[in-house]
Amino acid sequence: MSGDPSILLTIAVLGGTGREGKGLAFRWAKAGYHVLVGSRTPEKAIKTAAEIVQLLDGASSTVGMSNLQAAQQANIVVLTVPYASHRETLESVRSALNGKILVDVTVPIVPSKATKVQMPPAGSAAQEARDILGENTQIAAAFHSISHEYLLTDDFVDCDVLVTGTSKETRTETLQLVAAAGLTGWDAGPIENSVVLEGLTNVLININKLYHSTHAGIKITGVNKF
Amino acid sequence: MSGDPSILLTIAVLGGTGREGKGLAFRWAKAGYHVLVGSRTPEKAIKTAAEIVQLLDGASSTVGMSNLQAAQQANIVVLTVPYASHRETLESVRSALNGKILVDVTVPIVPSKATKVQMPPAGSAAQEARDILGENTQIAAAFHSISHEYLLTDDFVDCDVLVTGTSKETRTETLQLVAAAGLTGWDAGPIENSVVLEGLTNVLININKLYHSTHAGIKITGVNKF
Repeated sequence: MSGDPSILLTIAVLGGTGREGKGLAFRWAKAGYHVLVGSRTPEKAIKTAAEIVQLLDGASSTVGMSNLQAAQQANIVVLTVPYASHRETLESVRSALNGKILVDVTVPIVPSKATKVQMPPAGSAAQEARDILGENTQIAAAFHSISHEYLLTDDFVDCDVLVTGTSKETRTETLQLVAAAGLTGWDAGPIENSVVLEGLTNVLININKLYHSTHAGIKITGVNKF
Repeated sequence: MSGDPSILLTIAVLGGTGREGKGLAFRWAKAGYHVLVGSRTPEKAIKTAAEIVQLLDGASSTVGMSNLQAAQQANIVVLTVPYASHRETLESVRSALNGKILVDVTVPIVPSKATKVQMPPAGSAAQEARDILGENTQIAAAFHSISHEYLLTDDFVDCDVLVTGTSKETRTETLQLVAAAGLTGWDAGPIENSVVLEGLTNVLININKLYHSTHAGIKITGVNKF
């Protein structure tokens, strides 16, 4: 993407007061995008947005509002709510997503057994989003396994981002957001492949637990992208 | 595992005349294990076994035979057949696997669309194997994404091996085979997580195709195992 990204694209981060959402919002605000932090509780979103502006010494137009307002005003909408709020949040912003891209970060974790892959009947959270939103919204899935601790710093993140999506164009646009966040992304194919991206989080939680780590991630090897 | 592994463990590689199977058989033979190469066509297995012995300058007891004979004589059985032969091969050796570990390397690739994850109704090839074999056989899944070209050389393989299994002990035994093959392995949790390991192969095929590579793999980052 060339030129000033803030003119081109407004990004909404629904559930943007959570740790993952706040970290991603920070990275995009830092890259110059106009970022809308959304929350069920607008006051919390306003507070998080103010924190991000402060972290960037005032050099950001990030603002907070309700999830619905954020979805209405954005060109691209990123969903970072816990799986328990996935369907409810999507249904509440459905009409606002017409003609837009939804980037789903959700992992369908069962809290009592987070180390075991347990997908919803649709096959993955991203496919469930597709079923809820219908054909007028393009869906991508990405950013599932990025440790939020890294995102709020300038640290190098030693974890690649796999991106699936309902169309090649959707994946390409999402990969631009990955790059804007300072991360390395890979086109991981059609939306049906989302089970791998989401389930990898369960696998990495298992690895963290067994090998006494907190930030297990993955890197793609054997490919020279450039 | 301490001492001479060839005394402790005989490994059968069913479908061992294929590229992946031959590469794994070579690595284990090189590590000192007694390896049985199995095939539907015993003459082919005998030829492959002779090639492995030759590659090791005669310093190996690797022999070839039918899949059933190999399964009967081994302590641990590795399945490296194409998905089209998965069920048929398992049914043909079912009784020989009683009380043993089956390490399933199979990826349910649909040849016309190899870049898209398409799992069988059981959830993954490994879970299908569990359903076919019943409770008297422990199942592990591993080695799905290792490029066979690397295995037949002494080259460093820049791809980690994720291991799922029906029990902790099964995963631990399989991780010993991973280490014996000169590879880095990780306990990836219960057999239900196999969809991630198998589907990752579809994702890596997509990456190979889009980024003009042939050996895309993955490494786990952020964890110090030792």
